[in-house]
Amino acid sequence: MSTTTPLAPGLDHLGNLPAAEIQRLADRANALRTGAAPQRFAGKALGLFFLNPSLRTSASFQRAAARLGLELVQLRGDGVWGLEHQDGVVMDGTTAEHLREAAPVLGRYVDLLAVRAFHGAGSFEECRQDPIMQGFRRWAGVPVINMESARWHPCQALADWATLDQHAIPKRAKFVLSWAWHPKPLPHAVPNSTLCMAAQRGMDVVLLCPPGLELHDEVLAEAEQLATTHGGSLTVTHDREEALHGAAAVYAKSWGSQQHWGDLESETAFRAALRDWCVTPAWLGDSARFMHCLPIRRNVVASDAVLDGPQSIVLDQAEHRLHAQTALLESLLS
Amino acid sequence: MSTTTPLAPGLDHLGNLPAAEIQRLADRANALRTGAAPQRFAGKALGLFFLNPSLRTSASFQRAAARLGLELVQLRGDGVWGLEHQDGVVMDGTTAEHLREAAPVLGRYVDLLAVRAFHGAGSFEECRQDPIMQGFRRWAGVPVINMESARWHPCQALADWATLDQHAIPKRAKFVLSWAWHPKPLPHAVPNSTLCMAAQRGMDVVLLCPPGLELHDEVLAEAEQLATTHGGSLTVTHDREEALHGAAAVYAKSWGSQQHWGDLESETAFRAALRDWCVTPAWLGDSARFMHCLPIRRNVVASDAVLDGPQSIVLDQAEHRLHAQTALLESLLS
Amino acid sequence: MSTTTPLAPGLDHLGNLPAAEIQRLADRANALRTGAAPQRFAGKALGLFFLNPSLRTSASFQRAAARLGLELVQLRGDGVWGLEHQDGVVMDGTTAEHLREAAPVLGRYVDLLAVRAFHGAGSFEECRQDPIMQGFRRWAGVPVINMESARWHPCQALADWATLDQHAIPKRAKFVLSWAWHPKPLPHAVPNSTLCMAAQRGMDVVLLCPPGLELHDEVLAEAEQLATTHGGSLTVTHDREEALHGAAAVYAKSWGSQQHWGDLESETAFRAALRDWCVTPAWLGDSARFMHCLPIRRNVVASDAVLDGPQSIVLDQAEHRLHAQTALLESLLS
Repeated sequence: MSTTTPLAPGLDHLGNLPAAEIQRLADRANALRTGAAPQRFAGKALGLFFLNPSLRTSASFQRAAARLGLELVQLRGDGVWGLEHQDGVVMDGTTAEHLREAAPVLGRYVDLLAVRAFHGAGSFEECRQDPIMQGFRRWAGVPVINMESARWHPCQALADWATLDQHAIPKRAKFVLSWAWHPKPLPHAVPNSTLCMAAQRGMDVVLLCPPGLELHDEVLAEAEQLATTHGGSLTVTHDREEALHGAAAVYAKSWGSQQHWGDLESETAFRAALRDWCVTPAWLGDSARFMHCLPIRRNVVASDAVLDGPQSIVLDQAEHRLHAQTALLESLLS
Repeated sequence: MSTTTPLAPGLDHLGNLPAAEIQRLADRANALRTGAAPQRFAGKALGLFFLNPSLRTSASFQRAAARLGLELVQLRGDGVWGLEHQDGVVMDGTTAEHLREAAPVLGRYVDLLAVRAFHGAGSFEECRQDPIMQGFRRWAGVPVINMESARWHPCQALADWATLDQHAIPKRAKFVLSWAWHPKPLPHAVPNSTLCMAAQRGMDVVLLCPPGLELHDEVLAEAEQLATTHGGSLTVTHDREEALHGAAAVYAKSWGSQQHWGDLESETAFRAALRDWCVTPAWLGDSARFMHCLPIRRNVVASDAVLDGPQSIVLDQAEHRLHAQTALLESLLS
Repeated sequence: MSTTTPLAPGLDHLGNLPAAEIQRLADRANALRTGAAPQRFAGKALGLFFLNPSLRTSASFQRAAARLGLELVQLRGDGVWGLEHQDGVVMDGTTAEHLREAAPVLGRYVDLLAVRAFHGAGSFEECRQDPIMQGFRRWAGVPVINMESARWHPCQALADWATLDQHAIPKRAKFVLSWAWHPKPLPHAVPNSTLCMAAQRGMDVVLLCPPGLELHDEVLAEAEQLATTHGGSLTVTHDREEALHGAAAVYAKSWGSQQHWGDLESETAFRAALRDWCVTPAWLGDSARFMHCLPIRRNVVASDAVLDGPQSIVLDQAEHRLHAQTALLESLLS
């Protein structure tokens, strides 16, 4: 309950943390998973604010807060007044409250604020600037946890790191992030965070996608640098066979193309020929683990046989949301 | 937080429990009502997932969880991604997540999952098969409590049993479940559960309805068998006078006809002549108690005089939702 | 969890409390703000029922309940069946449950019920009678806290009183409540409560508005009487310069005109010429504090320069919602 401070700490992008700190959080997540007792923070409060739908993130943060003895304040975007994030705007339209008020008000009520805000419409460049999440971070006056913005999904990435450890996937193993077909163009937050996470873990990271579906240059550059720094590598390829050969983990995810951003008709036409980008057991071979952040469209992003087969670890990833976020909250509140 | 187990226990249909166990739960509910202290379950978590609206069920489960010291994880259907329940489907339509993922993920976060899912559109046969609730039960990996499905509403039935005890209505008394008019065709969950509950309690059960509004044969057969086993009887009649004569309790409820299921126009025409199926004080005579699960449409299902009169026990039924569910949670967690 | 009692106590209108009691609550709010420990009420439960959107009220009541160790039951209007409040109605339309059931049922589950219900459509006279809030108060059987109705917003007024104390604004200072332009006609709850609060505090209260935007005669009469009783004064004026001269606090708020109530087209035309009713730094001079209940439309109700300037205390008002409601709950539960 402090006053407004520009960019109070918290967690916006996993890559902003040192790898050793991430490893410490992942280790703690695995300790919590196997029975370690969480710390207790009597009298501290966590706010959860969802401006977009959520199943895993909402449920796992609620449980994490309860395990830590935190007081909980929950809000949903459709239960509050329409929020504005642009500076200097004359608010005579549909939005009724500016983040410049909403964020610091919530910051007066809680010690830590977690926000999901993908951002709705807007150019790719606007999404990349992540104005809603950055508004919360700038104006809340308390640390803000990004529960998925237009740009990053650090809690998913932390859980995925811990899941890779749980399954003893080595640091130098081959990690393939593959685009998959989906009826709608989706945000880049998960693939951005996944790519950087695997690179920072020091893996041999392969981004596999059809031409035109590469991630943003800035993300590729950051992943490249993280890989170099941590002893791994980054390869971008459209060649499925080459990419999948020898993979220890195949992480599927769909996302929209930068070129067709905001133009649903052109995007739909562009991806019409790409429906075979659906992960089947053949993609995995005998040993690659299958990963996805969920929710996943069955027989669209991956086949039933993949999801119901022994190589899928998607439920472990989801379970680690609870443990990773418990570890994160412990760390931020300690 | 175990792995997925087919059909983990929990409570789907009150009739699946032995009568002695139901009586023990009802006794405990009445003890809690009159001041007994609930048990405490530190570190255990209950998930509440509402895919349909709720006032009583949501409020009473929240309070029951708090009284028991449970950690609570709450989700609403309109706050999560659209759920799929059909097997083998290619999910390129509107649903974004399959129960095969959603259910076990929630099962990783909580020890016990309570779900309300009436199911939406669909044939009578599909409703009868209750695919959403059965999907949760099959895939959650933890015990699932049915908070009302397309087919059953066991928590209401348990509360009603305890309310009958509270008002000292004898086991062999006459219990009339009467259809009532309503502008919309409603699901069969409450009448199905009510009929079986009264039969299992050993009462002389009368199902009173206009021709064409009988409950499903399978439910009638189960109620018949429960009545026989527990020393009661089951009668189906369209004769209001005969049915109401000597009744100790009149339980009103509206539901849709099987014949017109899914055809709103034909259903509306069919029931247009049935508006006098509205319970008035004359239906009750001097001594019958009036029961209903709520919400109730005043002067449609029952008149103001009935609801505001001394023979109505609908608020006691509603209060017993809290006590009965507290008893049920104690039992499932012990 | 008592039976239905007509008009159980609670808080509907701050003016119903003696000024000394309000001062005691405001003092307690400031003590809590500066670190006093809240009382703990183990085993007691608070229900929060929002029939309209909320950010501050919902978040601050959730946190207040947690600080007091209260068990919490939360419902939203869009998660329950449509509620009816009119007596004697034949409910064959869109509403599915009457307050005569909904209110006492919730009263069986909690010790204290807090409700937000602005009321939707309806004549000015109907809004003034506040039928939904009065229905809850009449039928809940437990004390009801008004979290904003069509007529009053007592928790805001209590927080504002405590904020005036926090900023050492003297009792006999000049307090200006000014109408402001807004694209939509808004309810009168906040201005009604603000005017009466300042009058009861004994301030020199000025209601500043364009002609035709006066508050209701009954509210003016009550404020006049409160001012007289408590050593202050009430002036209604359309003269901005006169009103603002020497003001210690300028409280901006928009509201609809009684004359055009319910006629959006005529209201919009009426207020088209009033867009310069937007508070700028010039309104405040060197020393007046700027107040608003939030949410506020920037550059519509007040300019960025006002809200981001040093004379704005809107965030302190919002923070005091938490402390004032904590003090109120303590008082009602003790």
